[in-house]
Amino acid sequence: MSGAPEPDGELLARVLLSRVLEPGDETGGRWVRERGAVAVARRLRDGGPPLAGVSAGRWAGLCARAACARPERDLAAARDAQARFVRPGDVEWPAQLDDLGDGRPVGLWVRGRPSLRMWALRSVAVVGARACTEYGAHMAVSLAAGLAERGWVVVSGGAYGVDGAAHRGALGSGGATVAVLACGVDRPYPRGHTELINRIAQQGLVVGELPPGDHPTPSRFVVRNRVIAALTRGTVVVEAAHRSGSLVTARAAQRLGRHTMGVPGPATSALSAGVHELLRGGAALVTDAAEVVELVGAIGELAPRRRGPVLPLDLLEPQARQVLAALPARGRAPVAEIARGARTSEDEATARLYELRSLGYVERHGEGWKLTRQAITSARAGRTGC
Amino acid sequence: MSGAPEPDGELLARVLLSRVLEPGDETGGRWVRERGAVAVARRLRDGGPPLAGVSAGRWAGLCARAACARPERDLAAARDAQARFVRPGDVEWPAQLDDLGDGRPVGLWVRGRPSLRMWALRSVAVVGARACTEYGAHMAVSLAAGLAERGWVVVSGGAYGVDGAAHRGALGSGGATVAVLACGVDRPYPRGHTELINRIAQQGLVVGELPPGDHPTPSRFVVRNRVIAALTRGTVVVEAAHRSGSLVTARAAQRLGRHTMGVPGPATSALSAGVHELLRGGAALVTDAAEVVELVGAIGELAPRRRGPVLPLDLLEPQARQVLAALPARGRAPVAEIARGARTSEDEATARLYELRSLGYVERHGEGWKLTRQAITSARAGRTGC
Repeated sequence: MSGAPEPDGELLARVLLSRVLEPGDETGGRWVRERGAVAVARRLRDGGPPLAGVSAGRWAGLCARAACARPERDLAAARDAQARFVRPGDVEWPAQLDDLGDGRPVGLWVRGRPSLRMWALRSVAVVGARACTEYGAHMAVSLAAGLAERGWVVVSGGAYGVDGAAHRGALGSGGATVAVLACGVDRPYPRGHTELINRIAQQGLVVGELPPGDHPTPSRFVVRNRVIAALTRGTVVVEAAHRSGSLVTARAAQRLGRHTMGVPGPATSALSAGVHELLRGGAALVTDAAEVVELVGAIGELAPRRRGPVLPLDLLEPQARQVLAALPARGRAPVAEIARGARTSEDEATARLYELRSLGYVERHGEGWKLTRQAITSARAGRTGC
Repeated sequence: MSGAPEPDGELLARVLLSRVLEPGDETGGRWVRERGAVAVARRLRDGGPPLAGVSAGRWAGLCARAACARPERDLAAARDAQARFVRPGDVEWPAQLDDLGDGRPVGLWVRGRPSLRMWALRSVAVVGARACTEYGAHMAVSLAAGLAERGWVVVSGGAYGVDGAAHRGALGSGGATVAVLACGVDRPYPRGHTELINRIAQQGLVVGELPPGDHPTPSRFVVRNRVIAALTRGTVVVEAAHRSGSLVTARAAQRLGRHTMGVPGPATSALSAGVHELLRGGAALVTDAAEVVELVGAIGELAPRRRGPVLPLDLLEPQARQVLAALPARGRAPVAEIARGARTSEDEATARLYELRSLGYVERHGEGWKLTRQAITSARAGRTGC
């Protein structure tokens, strides 16, 4: 996203709040909803009287953090790391995060080419144990690859084990993946996944609530999970022990009315026990990507068919129109060919193709992309002036 | 069951019908319901005009079979094999089989000491693939052992694979097991399970609809499954490929309003695919015996507690009263000790203990048996004449 606009007061206020408020702080979220980010940021920076719902000591702590915050510096650091700040109301803001109510992030730091909003429209979370078994890793890779091949974006937490396998499965099949981190997006965590996370930033999206340089804590992992749950149409838990973090994501998804799914495993495996618990509690049992898509696609697959593409052709960004124009009128083409036709890189073409997929213009079938019937219809309508 | 009464006309008629009608023949079942077994048997034997719902050719076939039938000889053959014929209305008839409507067996051939009715009261079917994996065999053994230790009777089909593992798991923990065969009970099938089936007849029950000497056919396996489903409180499928016979049992159980359960396995295993299909269709996911008992015991565990034992002490058979009297007033005793106290064999004691368990008099805890509170209360009531 080049050519970012000059920071306005509301933007700077939200960047400050992203540094001052802990992710998921619902009291702070309420202040912002009731008074607006600018007023809350000013009150904190000026060390004014405490706002409702917080002790004097806690308020003093927040004011101290606000006094040290340097929003312009955070924005500059983000720019250096090729990250941007996306806030509610922005074109790129994923509206489904509003389901989090006052726990909604004040904004998200985002690294990567694609539009977070577009990609999140057709996304599924694939999460699970860090210390997963070979079976768990295999299932994560194969589910993610299958989802990617069906035009779905795979969201996960960038962790070792199932998360990493899910990201790799998506990347490995030329697919789209989003890592939601519990730390600054310029500071890949875990360290051993630095290369993987940088690759995701190159080919997909790396997202986080915390400002540049901020580090993860145990509670930040837990609250991060609500963002994964809210961002996606559904959450698949691949392997999880009893009381694992992935079950937190799954339960958040359930509360948010998202699809909650689990991959069964041997009844003898402690790493499937949490998933079985989830399945006994009403989550859907899934064994492959087709079954996941059958669930999460149930409404979305039909809706665009009735309404046509979400955005009219004229409102598409120039890069997306270029990529769309590079698709053959009939049949499929691989990404490499589309990228050549659109005179762009494969990563850029992939970013746009999954956006166009969310908008109902294109479909992925295995290794090839093709125009949907609606895309052909609306292109024809545009040409004849209907 | 020594001292069998002289065969009456109705008994001989049902024995003849058990030879003439195929198991599960609902047209024949309707004739018997509408006209009584004696009239139907006479009409078939006399080669009278066809009854409703059957072609002339098919009727002629049935009459030919009836002409060759020798019910007295079948009863004698059964006696030689230490088998008895149990029919609707008998004390030993499991009333829940009446849920099969006109598909109810005309009678059952039974080998073994215990009362089929008593044992079936608290029974669970554990079924699955013949060509099961090591995992499937392990799960069948461990579920069956766990059920046996909780005082539940394990019912299965005597086949290779999961069935055999379930029977062995129950026997191996001194438990109760019933094999429902698709052939004559004097003719163990499969041949490789001759020894196992004979052991089940010695320590438990071997049951079948077909008269002595009759052989199994593919369709007989399928209709046999409805008896397993109807006899038990619920069916657990351990491993099953798509379209397997165990799924037939599970769906029959579902239709009959019994609990239907499945053991999850790796999503990559073809032998778990059928179970996962079942679980996606609404069956309950279970991973151990405790979870099975939680489901099937839900009503039964409470009901006897309110009503006291099903049968008053005075109506118990002498052997059962002897075994009951051999239990210590406080604490648990192993079967060997109870058998010594009752001056009987361990197999006989086990047969009675599981009967008494069904009636609410005793409980099994691991390797020991103890009196229930109700048993103590009703014994005391009996003594004081209340």
